[in-house]
Amino acid sequence: MINVGIIGYGYWGPNVARNFNVCEGAKLVSICDLNEKRLNFAKSNYPFIKAYLDPNELISSGDIDAVAVVTPVFTHFELAKLALENGKHIFIEKPFTSTVAQGAELIEIAEKKNLKIMVDHTFLFTGAVRKMREIIDSGELGDLFFYDSVRVNLGLFQHDINVVWDLAPHDFSIMNYLIDEEPKAITALGSEHFGRKLEDIAYIAVHFGNSFIAHFHCNWLSPVKVRRTLVSGDKKMLIWDDLSSDEKVKIYDKGVEIKNTNGIHKLLVNYRSGDVHIPKVNNTEALKLEADYFVECIERNQKPFNDGEAGLMVVRMLEAADKSMKNDCQKVYL
Amino acid sequence: MINVGIIGYGYWGPNVARNFNVCEGAKLVSICDLNEKRLNFAKSNYPFIKAYLDPNELISSGDIDAVAVVTPVFTHFELAKLALENGKHIFIEKPFTSTVAQGAELIEIAEKKNLKIMVDHTFLFTGAVRKMREIIDSGELGDLFFYDSVRVNLGLFQHDINVVWDLAPHDFSIMNYLIDEEPKAITALGSEHFGRKLEDIAYIAVHFGNSFIAHFHCNWLSPVKVRRTLVSGDKKMLIWDDLSSDEKVKIYDKGVEIKNTNGIHKLLVNYRSGDVHIPKVNNTEALKLEADYFVECIERNQKPFNDGEAGLMVVRMLEAADKSMKNDCQKVYL
Amino acid sequence: MINVGIIGYGYWGPNVARNFNVCEGAKLVSICDLNEKRLNFAKSNYPFIKAYLDPNELISSGDIDAVAVVTPVFTHFELAKLALENGKHIFIEKPFTSTVAQGAELIEIAEKKNLKIMVDHTFLFTGAVRKMREIIDSGELGDLFFYDSVRVNLGLFQHDINVVWDLAPHDFSIMNYLIDEEPKAITALGSEHFGRKLEDIAYIAVHFGNSFIAHFHCNWLSPVKVRRTLVSGDKKMLIWDDLSSDEKVKIYDKGVEIKNTNGIHKLLVNYRSGDVHIPKVNNTEALKLEADYFVECIERNQKPFNDGEAGLMVVRMLEAADKSMKNDCQKVYL
Amino acid sequence: MINVGIIGYGYWGPNVARNFNVCEGAKLVSICDLNEKRLNFAKSNYPFIKAYLDPNELISSGDIDAVAVVTPVFTHFELAKLALENGKHIFIEKPFTSTVAQGAELIEIAEKKNLKIMVDHTFLFTGAVRKMREIIDSGELGDLFFYDSVRVNLGLFQHDINVVWDLAPHDFSIMNYLIDEEPKAITALGSEHFGRKLEDIAYIAVHFGNSFIAHFHCNWLSPVKVRRTLVSGDKKMLIWDDLSSDEKVKIYDKGVEIKNTNGIHKLLVNYRSGDVHIPKVNNTEALKLEADYFVECIERNQKPFNDGEAGLMVVRMLEAADKSMKNDCQKVYL
Repeated sequence: MINVGIIGYGYWGPNVARNFNVCEGAKLVSICDLNEKRLNFAKSNYPFIKAYLDPNELISSGDIDAVAVVTPVFTHFELAKLALENGKHIFIEKPFTSTVAQGAELIEIAEKKNLKIMVDHTFLFTGAVRKMREIIDSGELGDLFFYDSVRVNLGLFQHDINVVWDLAPHDFSIMNYLIDEEPKAITALGSEHFGRKLEDIAYIAVHFGNSFIAHFHCNWLSPVKVRRTLVSGDKKMLIWDDLSSDEKVKIYDKGVEIKNTNGIHKLLVNYRSGDVHIPKVNNTEALKLEADYFVECIERNQKPFNDGEAGLMVVRMLEAADKSMKNDCQKVYL
Repeated sequence: MINVGIIGYGYWGPNVARNFNVCEGAKLVSICDLNEKRLNFAKSNYPFIKAYLDPNELISSGDIDAVAVVTPVFTHFELAKLALENGKHIFIEKPFTSTVAQGAELIEIAEKKNLKIMVDHTFLFTGAVRKMREIIDSGELGDLFFYDSVRVNLGLFQHDINVVWDLAPHDFSIMNYLIDEEPKAITALGSEHFGRKLEDIAYIAVHFGNSFIAHFHCNWLSPVKVRRTLVSGDKKMLIWDDLSSDEKVKIYDKGVEIKNTNGIHKLLVNYRSGDVHIPKVNNTEALKLEADYFVECIERNQKPFNDGEAGLMVVRMLEAADKSMKNDCQKVYL
Repeated sequence: MINVGIIGYGYWGPNVARNFNVCEGAKLVSICDLNEKRLNFAKSNYPFIKAYLDPNELISSGDIDAVAVVTPVFTHFELAKLALENGKHIFIEKPFTSTVAQGAELIEIAEKKNLKIMVDHTFLFTGAVRKMREIIDSGELGDLFFYDSVRVNLGLFQHDINVVWDLAPHDFSIMNYLIDEEPKAITALGSEHFGRKLEDIAYIAVHFGNSFIAHFHCNWLSPVKVRRTLVSGDKKMLIWDDLSSDEKVKIYDKGVEIKNTNGIHKLLVNYRSGDVHIPKVNNTEALKLEADYFVECIERNQKPFNDGEAGLMVVRMLEAADKSMKNDCQKVYL
Repeated sequence: MINVGIIGYGYWGPNVARNFNVCEGAKLVSICDLNEKRLNFAKSNYPFIKAYLDPNELISSGDIDAVAVVTPVFTHFELAKLALENGKHIFIEKPFTSTVAQGAELIEIAEKKNLKIMVDHTFLFTGAVRKMREIIDSGELGDLFFYDSVRVNLGLFQHDINVVWDLAPHDFSIMNYLIDEEPKAITALGSEHFGRKLEDIAYIAVHFGNSFIAHFHCNWLSPVKVRRTLVSGDKKMLIWDDLSSDEKVKIYDKGVEIKNTNGIHKLLVNYRSGDVHIPKVNNTEALKLEADYFVECIERNQKPFNDGEAGLMVVRMLEAADKSMKNDCQKVYL
């Protein structure tokens, strides 16, 4: 049985608490929030918990095995480091840390102490992402041409991070999970419109040193909400529309074959267009599966796939995107 | 009455012929195609025309005032130059020319001889683009944040040009028409997948030296067809979906106001979300309006807004995109 | 301050409780449920309430002014009658009663004792229905041609009522609220497929003694969920799509004018097709507005528009539909 | 080689002419239209044809084997009868005739003379309808629950027939083609709004003497165009959306199982929701396939499935619908 303490009971914390509370191998023991009103709300939801206003007290208490850090990113490093130093496994919100250096330091500490770090990239536990991974792994799409992601809507503006740090962690982690190739470099272009030095629009390309490219459009200023990813291969193509309730993943039996024969104008192109298939995707709450997996990784002393390294890769990409945006779309190697 | 000869009776030529044939101020006099079969088809459609296999003969004939050049781009310069030198006005397919140098030379010749050049950016004569221009000019959208265009589908591969030269002329010309600001630089990223050294996917950003940015996604390898443009301003936002039959242009009374007050966490954000309006757009065939306008410009000795200069700007942007794609997304000034 | 007791804490009861709990003029005093588990759940949500397993005890307690009856329809009459006889106002789930006779009796008792009956047709308090009423009342649509409603999905099967009693109360109450004309007769056609003598598909027409007709398609066996209503007039037409998050009500400036001139083939038809307008609709939770209105009606001794008479009209229509379905689509007068 | 003469060169005639002109086993020989302008248009399209203003001349000419009657329905009987009496096979527009009696008489004549009648229910030759027939015939949907068809739009008003005779022939013929059961009775409800005694809205139900029902909504006064059919079975369900370009037929692996166990509240309901499949449908022009089939039936002396009997069944259903509409939705047996 893993005893869990949660730091942060704002927007996402209640979901983390709720899922650890019903997780078979875990016990929700304590919750901390700086805001007394939120803390009282936590107590009314879970009258049995120990409630703390000071995260240090929660972390240093002897009755927990793991700490869930559900706070703004600028606080991650300090809290996670303290937790690790106190011998606690950590379940930590995305993005993992504010800098690559911080993430690397946390990983090092965790390794020395044989503690687990799980970065909460919740999307990796959704039915849609799991189904896409299954499809891509099976080779059904063939060799991949490109990965194109659009995540745009109106707001919500974050006060301390730009749109890349807000939205791209989702898409970077999903792409890293789905695509076997390792990202080599980033070019990014951003713009900001409210004098805050924080981009509210960004276009980010990820380069792999070959013809496969990935592109991400993140935007807080779109009148419509779009959450759409295209993955196109030489055998089939797929679309993931996360806003669709019933047709999240569509697989198109479409393709193109090009044959260059002799002579400049002798291009033979064959288009293929067949059936469309919409597989059913699992609707189990992603965070529930992730909480179960966190407990399983600790109990079996097993490395999570969404561990510190995976979380660090995302931070590395975010840093590179920031640097490229500041330098006229310069190519930044990872 | 403007007598018109048409060179090229392939995919688009028949539309040009049909519209000049019913254009009040114009008379369709002659058609040329290298392919005898196509030429016979032209004759069966318009038994009264003079038919030529050799474009030089059409151009040098004394019975026409204007030549419509409806041929592949690599032939534009030679044909248009000859036509201008023979004292003919020209109506020429987009993109205007294969290089900036060629376009500049044609403009110079036309100016010396007081001949008109009209580049056939047909979209500028559609009801949707006209309506958007009306809306943007009225100031209804306020200060513009960004322009985002997606033009993707499966195929059709061109054998002599890349996806940028195939699709972006539409979007560059439309943006230039809608947006008052002058483009300053281009960054572009492309990829090709069939060993042809011709990109089949491209992401292009246009920079204006301020916070307004424009971005274009052109793609021949998408399983679904998308033709969608977002223009977002600080008062309202609009979406143009060219595939929608009844709701092409939607105007959203949406916005965001951000106030930074004292203190790092004291961000005040107001979102505004009001009505949506879908104006009726004119359904008159765009090419009909353009043919009428061509005649009008010649008769009134008036400079078309889609003249050689406008066409040249598009070619300049295409060249810059090519250069940026070849150089790792380098910023190329226009 | 109106003290409220709630009978029934199943699917809908918690929503009623939550809204009366935050309603300014009301105080949530007691909750009753036959199921001990549900009752404990109610107590955990509202530790301050009095909890009853026996509805008679709740009803006869001296500390409440009003009873919310949130139970299956076959229990409504008995519970509501007892509540009225005990001098309590009632807020009662739709459909009001199982028979017209029951509803009429409740109304009579309430009138004698000057008590209020409000039938919980929650949709009448949604932003979309309110907006439609505003539009129709303004005359913007002109004279109405027809009202067409489709409410279909897969399940959820009710064990004691047919699809008409399950779904049509929504649509009958909405139509009665939107349309000034009084329904005169019903024809209905149903079918059942599981040997339960309870229709799972029904098509119901409501007749008004003139050319305006209303039609309702209710269906538990559709693979897709549709919640769509068309109201068409001689000036404009509107569509209400309740599943759309952002575009619930669309007003089409479309119409047709027909002129019969002399001679059989001299029909002059003009179609008009203009802008589409999508008004913003209020997102306040409907049940919250309804709870406030219930309190207001009691305090001001004012007749609710969704009173027993309105609820009874819906029951009358349901009974007529049942009768018509049993008799080969016979016209049943109301 | 079947020599074909066409009567009627209005809206649909040119399509019939074009397809018989390229049909391998047929030769387009003559065209007739009462309107001289239309007849000249026909001659400009097919300079080789014999052109007639008088249908009698075309019919009595010795150089044709078959007559295509592409005229308004009220002229069908007279023209078709004359053609049959002159020994010509007939290809005739839907609906077959204005009355059941007329249709029966034509069938009788044709049988005596061993001539073919093909009623042009073009939809039966579309890829979507063929695919649906394949699916239903395979048993993939299981036992059918219902057939629901919606065919609504704004206009186009016909001057001599009501909305049922205009739109329902499509849907009746498609349903008869897809569904093996024989229709037993019709109930229908209509309304008209322009003082023409011709219904512009109609709801029609077809009864089969069992729990399967079919329902048709035909409407000329809808602000949006809908062409959608649901066919629901106990194993799977399908939707045909004829306005979708790429996803016309969708098959849903969805269903419901209900078990009534002992006791009134012991209803066990299982919902099943699996994959969705969108088969590719053939895009060959339906009328081309139909023209080929007409020639094939004549050459092989084979009875077309869309013969006079099939066309007559549709007329019988139209007559029944009219009668039911005039008599308060009375059940009219076929």
